[in-house]
Amino acid sequence: MTEASPTRAERIISRCRELARLTDVPGETTRLFLSLATREAHTKLLGWMREVNLETRTDDTGSLRTIRRTANPNAPTLLLFSHIDTVLNAGPFDGVLGVVLSLAALEELSTSPLPFSIELIALSEEEGIRFGFPFLSSLALTGQLTAEHLARTDADGITVADAIRNFGLNPHHISSTCSLSPNTFAALEIHIEQGPVLDAANESIAVVEGIIGQSRLRFIFEGHANHAGTTPMPLRHDALAAAAQWITAVEQYAATHNPLVATVGRLEVFPGAVNVIPGRVDASLDIRHPDDTARHEAVTALEAAAQQAATSRGVRVTASLQSEQATVSMNPALTTQLQQAAHRAGHTVRTMSSGAGHDAMIFAPHVPTTMLFVRSPNGLSHHPDETVREQDVEAALATTLDFIRALHEPLTTNH
Amino acid sequence: MTEASPTRAERIISRCRELARLTDVPGETTRLFLSLATREAHTKLLGWMREVNLETRTDDTGSLRTIRRTANPNAPTLLLFSHIDTVLNAGPFDGVLGVVLSLAALEELSTSPLPFSIELIALSEEEGIRFGFPFLSSLALTGQLTAEHLARTDADGITVADAIRNFGLNPHHISSTCSLSPNTFAALEIHIEQGPVLDAANESIAVVEGIIGQSRLRFIFEGHANHAGTTPMPLRHDALAAAAQWITAVEQYAATHNPLVATVGRLEVFPGAVNVIPGRVDASLDIRHPDDTARHEAVTALEAAAQQAATSRGVRVTASLQSEQATVSMNPALTTQLQQAAHRAGHTVRTMSSGAGHDAMIFAPHVPTTMLFVRSPNGLSHHPDETVREQDVEAALATTLDFIRALHEPLTTNH
Repeated sequence: MTEASPTRAERIISRCRELARLTDVPGETTRLFLSLATREAHTKLLGWMREVNLETRTDDTGSLRTIRRTANPNAPTLLLFSHIDTVLNAGPFDGVLGVVLSLAALEELSTSPLPFSIELIALSEEEGIRFGFPFLSSLALTGQLTAEHLARTDADGITVADAIRNFGLNPHHISSTCSLSPNTFAALEIHIEQGPVLDAANESIAVVEGIIGQSRLRFIFEGHANHAGTTPMPLRHDALAAAAQWITAVEQYAATHNPLVATVGRLEVFPGAVNVIPGRVDASLDIRHPDDTARHEAVTALEAAAQQAATSRGVRVTASLQSEQATVSMNPALTTQLQQAAHRAGHTVRTMSSGAGHDAMIFAPHVPTTMLFVRSPNGLSHHPDETVREQDVEAALATTLDFIRALHEPLTTNH
Repeated sequence: MTEASPTRAERIISRCRELARLTDVPGETTRLFLSLATREAHTKLLGWMREVNLETRTDDTGSLRTIRRTANPNAPTLLLFSHIDTVLNAGPFDGVLGVVLSLAALEELSTSPLPFSIELIALSEEEGIRFGFPFLSSLALTGQLTAEHLARTDADGITVADAIRNFGLNPHHISSTCSLSPNTFAALEIHIEQGPVLDAANESIAVVEGIIGQSRLRFIFEGHANHAGTTPMPLRHDALAAAAQWITAVEQYAATHNPLVATVGRLEVFPGAVNVIPGRVDASLDIRHPDDTARHEAVTALEAAAQQAATSRGVRVTASLQSEQATVSMNPALTTQLQQAAHRAGHTVRTMSSGAGHDAMIFAPHVPTTMLFVRSPNGLSHHPDETVREQDVEAALATTLDFIRALHEPLTTNH
């Protein structure tokens, strides 16, 4: 008996797991922007890229780029991308799968003549853990990284600019080295779903038609802290009781406004003692909906619900908008081509919205962009147990190869 | 014009404020068990006691005791008591008012012959801040302070026994020096209400017929933490949404079961990030009712409410009893005598239950005990702005004097 050689999907999965061992924190997978583990990941990826004779370079935000050129120097370029930084104590596939799978596609296509070049960018920073803001690399690639961004500091007080210098790069060269290749006519990001939809439907892959908009708000309920034993119920101004009624209203509103999702994820109670009526509650609200108008209506309705829950208890509430992001559509023509490729490869694929933010939404206004989702078993992500199935990775690879082979212009950006 | 000399109530208030300046933390009133500020408070109180020629001693838990003896050495003893330790950043009257007012009563009575002795004990520890358990001094006085209590440590790792030694006292002498005086036939604690009932009714004082029982529980809701953007509402197991529905049920149950009070005072959400569905909530429940059966029924009902809120969301909940204290009745005959004294002094006084715990509930099973409440303006206590009104202090003093002058045996303990 001889051992069967691994399938191409198995090889992709095994490479992702190999990268997961390159970590800033032993025993887990934590690979932050421009850390030592990022350097190790670059070295590993460079080795794999050179195996297939690809030209490589690192741009000045530390994104690793490789290009497969076509004979015609004026030919357009297809961009494949995802990210190689991670959250704290991450899984092996968030971001990394898209990079490794795209590289496998380049390898598969090495003997196929194509009328365009293909660039693969392993983005150095998407999660935003180190400097507290996401999409640093894609912001740079679309000319949106500012001096203010470069001055931000990490937990050790190191600025973005210094982190770039410490990695041997030059922040002053960002505008020249971090632009998109000329004539980039289409862009594709492959990413795990990070949600339960495909797993619940028992489907391998989906095409992403848009990344849904979100509003983040902060609600502060101010009542009166008082003795839990000596204050009769009618004389109370319980900030937590008010917040609780509101949280129930948030859940109910979302449940009746599908596909809205609304989450109170952070909630702090003050003073927070067993025998003291809560005088103050500080809570977050995260609202997402593919339709921006529906999202704005939800914000208004849930502010009113908070007001009502507070007023009936003699509690004051203030709501403040912390951040807002409009829904970003993927390029419809490109998304259709991706869906057709999946069909030809034998897969039923739904179009769906991404509830999570991705670099694709930063590129979309600048270049026709689409996204392919790969099932997340149990919807699990941002967790060491995050995984992918071999059959799903094969479906994504086959679809990507068919998509690239059939890809044709013209496409217009969806400003 | 000459300045009017202060009234006796003004003098009591001014002495309380003087003691409030003796603090372990400059700028606030924080006087913990056997601290340096306790020593200063002893010195101040000793001076006032000696002004009226009273015999004094410090027992081996650091309670300061003074006695006005009657000629007959076999005469019974009336005990007056309250405490001189404070919570963190306290007000000037919690505990201290009872000690200072009782001393003023002794002064007023100095020329009145009485058929019994009167002992005043300024208890060294009621709040339980330093060692994390309350009523240390009254437990010692009733023979309930154990070796386990003495081995407890404060934040610096100092044991109760060592704290006693460091104050120049001897923990081995507690059983002999900390007993009640022989023939103690009645006990009275004067204390601020620490609640809003008297203020809402515009009444100066009340007699306390009992200290209401309480149950403290811990509820842990376990759902699934997940991405707030990618997890549709029907696929969520939101621990906070479950807890919120339960908190609303707690409030509603209490509102419809007067005089029950129920409070969720502590609540922690995990992981507690804006964009993550809460996977775990850890919450407290404090339930109090004068009737122990009604309290037990409430515990059962609110455990069931938590179960229902959890189950409907695929969340698990566990409830565990953290502590329980049965309702303690004050001595009915003594309480009636106190109420009659108040009437003779010209005050309408209600009987009420105390929602807060007091040393009186530790003494009550051992000696006929009653309690007099003094209005807390705005119901405010455990706060630097805690105050009392002169007219209310005068009402309490007049009532106390009349009560003592008319006090008669026999009384039986209410086991």
